[in-house]
Amino acid sequence: MSTQTADHTDIRATNLAAVLGFLRRQAPCSRAAIASGTGLNKATVTSIVGDLLDRRLVRETQQTQNHVGRPATLLVLDGSAYAAIGLEVSARGLSALAYDTAGEQVLRWHRAGPGVDAGPAKTIAALAALARRAITTVQSSGRRVLGITVGVPGLVNRDGAVVLAAGLGWRDVALQADLAAALGRPDIPVNVDNDASLAVLAEHLYGPLAGSENLIELNGDTGVGAGIIVDGRPLRGHLGYVGEIGHLRLVADGPVCGCGRRGCLEALASLPAILSRIDGLTDPDPQIQLEHLIRRADAGEAAVTKVLAEAGTHLGHGIAALVNILNPGYVVLGGSYALLATHLSPTITKSLHESAIAPDAGGCTIVASTFPHTATPLGATAQALAPLTMGHLPSLA
Amino acid sequence: MSTQTADHTDIRATNLAAVLGFLRRQAPCSRAAIASGTGLNKATVTSIVGDLLDRRLVRETQQTQNHVGRPATLLVLDGSAYAAIGLEVSARGLSALAYDTAGEQVLRWHRAGPGVDAGPAKTIAALAALARRAITTVQSSGRRVLGITVGVPGLVNRDGAVVLAAGLGWRDVALQADLAAALGRPDIPVNVDNDASLAVLAEHLYGPLAGSENLIELNGDTGVGAGIIVDGRPLRGHLGYVGEIGHLRLVADGPVCGCGRRGCLEALASLPAILSRIDGLTDPDPQIQLEHLIRRADAGEAAVTKVLAEAGTHLGHGIAALVNILNPGYVVLGGSYALLATHLSPTITKSLHESAIAPDAGGCTIVASTFPHTATPLGATAQALAPLTMGHLPSLA
Repeated sequence: MSTQTADHTDIRATNLAAVLGFLRRQAPCSRAAIASGTGLNKATVTSIVGDLLDRRLVRETQQTQNHVGRPATLLVLDGSAYAAIGLEVSARGLSALAYDTAGEQVLRWHRAGPGVDAGPAKTIAALAALARRAITTVQSSGRRVLGITVGVPGLVNRDGAVVLAAGLGWRDVALQADLAAALGRPDIPVNVDNDASLAVLAEHLYGPLAGSENLIELNGDTGVGAGIIVDGRPLRGHLGYVGEIGHLRLVADGPVCGCGRRGCLEALASLPAILSRIDGLTDPDPQIQLEHLIRRADAGEAAVTKVLAEAGTHLGHGIAALVNILNPGYVVLGGSYALLATHLSPTITKSLHESAIAPDAGGCTIVASTFPHTATPLGATAQALAPLTMGHLPSLA
Repeated sequence: MSTQTADHTDIRATNLAAVLGFLRRQAPCSRAAIASGTGLNKATVTSIVGDLLDRRLVRETQQTQNHVGRPATLLVLDGSAYAAIGLEVSARGLSALAYDTAGEQVLRWHRAGPGVDAGPAKTIAALAALARRAITTVQSSGRRVLGITVGVPGLVNRDGAVVLAAGLGWRDVALQADLAAALGRPDIPVNVDNDASLAVLAEHLYGPLAGSENLIELNGDTGVGAGIIVDGRPLRGHLGYVGEIGHLRLVADGPVCGCGRRGCLEALASLPAILSRIDGLTDPDPQIQLEHLIRRADAGEAAVTKVLAEAGTHLGHGIAALVNILNPGYVVLGGSYALLATHLSPTITKSLHESAIAPDAGGCTIVASTFPHTATPLGATAQALAPLTMGHLPSLA
């Protein structure tokens, strides 16, 4: 933001965001500590804290600082008034997560999906039922829902429509509009974004790699997609269709992909592609199939570890394309890839280092996500809270 | 920049950059117009303009505004005091360009290179000779040289060393240090960057696509590399090794690439790869070979247009990988690709649309650069002037 073009409202929001950010990292802390930490003057801090107290976004606590002197009035984040809901649609099922504004988890649910064959209408109905239940649960905890964001494995346009989700068999599904209509709650903003773009936001904000400036999260639960943080910012691109590494053609005349082409990374190394190559996984729930797969791989069953090693080789070639173009510091294996990381990583690393042009793969480290089940809905709650994080207060109820 | 953490020096630089930027777009203009256009108060503008007048970065001119009233004192950029030099090393030879701070070209030279087989020492000696001659020419025009930036087709690390330039056969060449030592001018900063990263800067700042937020320039004069602007900013990545699309493997067991692998885009569709597939191009100067190639292609010689159509197909597949990952609004065919655009574009567009996953290739338009000969050195002059553009004044001589 350039100082000379900022108007008063912008400055107020910027300052409010700075105070909230400082509290998130440093609370409990005094008004004086906020002032010195943010460089804002004390009157401004007092005024902003007043607004935050009014909305129950912070609360006061009596505490002795540094174990000496009289107790000072310190401030902490208050999560009792507001929360955000993150949802995820994947071949593994539907997930819901809610976090309050103090960073406490309010609920976390997973249910077996209606299945990829169910079609979008049935899935949206199930998602709406899950969202309604989540809203009720958040509200009965006394909190207002500030927003709902849904992650889906596909191309999402600026209207929240899913232009293409090959792994779900969806094309031109007006998810945001349909879900909002099904909920009938115009007071709660509904947004839709790509699952990997949300997952990488969770990695960028929370967990061991928080703050990494060049970070990619690879998710293969349904299709294969990459969420990308470059130079400290989420990559958006011209229309938001970024990170679609799943349709890189790796094998001429390879297996048919959901997109209609052949030999795509997704057709070779997505979780559904891996599961389809393992005999004896008969449970209809892909989540249970995954658990069986992990158990048999951990037991060292040769046919299973061979399929995973081959998938790792393909993933390494795909990651090499990302590395050659984007030079990330980290590639995070997300979702089921994180759960399978010990089996995938050796061949991923080998083929990455063979295919990457920069020495030592440009300093790229492959790590497993510490949020294998929740990165997407967690990133979705962060996105639903983004207006507040940017300093825009919810209206007083 | 956040308002609350800016110290006085930062603010002065930001404001100075805003005044220079306004003058670049709007000059001639009055101090009052600058104040109202930038939102700065008049005293600040007067003080900044004073500094700029002292350093001959702007000058006053008497002019009647709007054809009415008494003549007002207007300000224009003054290029008489400073210039920057941009250099390029490629398989086509060596280029030099100098621009003054008012955007006027001071010199533009091209010479046949010492050749790819000459080795780095010989090339750096030739480059230093060219740079010395450029410095002398700029100085005899009365201008001080603010900096020299060199574009090379390869991976450049943060010390300006060329880690790998497969198309030149270079590995671990300390170009920045060696060139600076050869010049013996510690008063002139020397920088080195990837050629395509500089070329896309020229497209982003000047010409018909100036200001485009998501823009890629593809250059194949030596290797094949992409310069990338995403969400309005040049992509840098973890160590600066970005845009290396040239080593995407497109054909299993394809021709051997300079990197040692097989079937890379670069081995199939770089200018040297194209030239090597055309019979009868015997001139030792690749620039003259290119001219012959263009002449024969324009004349419709079937063997030539067939080679170009095949190269276009490969380029389209490579561009599709960029499109799937980055969703650019434009891909600019730079360097010799721009000169060959009419022959390459049909198959590029066809294979891009076959391979891109987003509908209509995510809204990506393929265009030919309007700076086919100078994008890299032009971007290099812009980079050498970046400290001034960011508001940091040169010291008073």
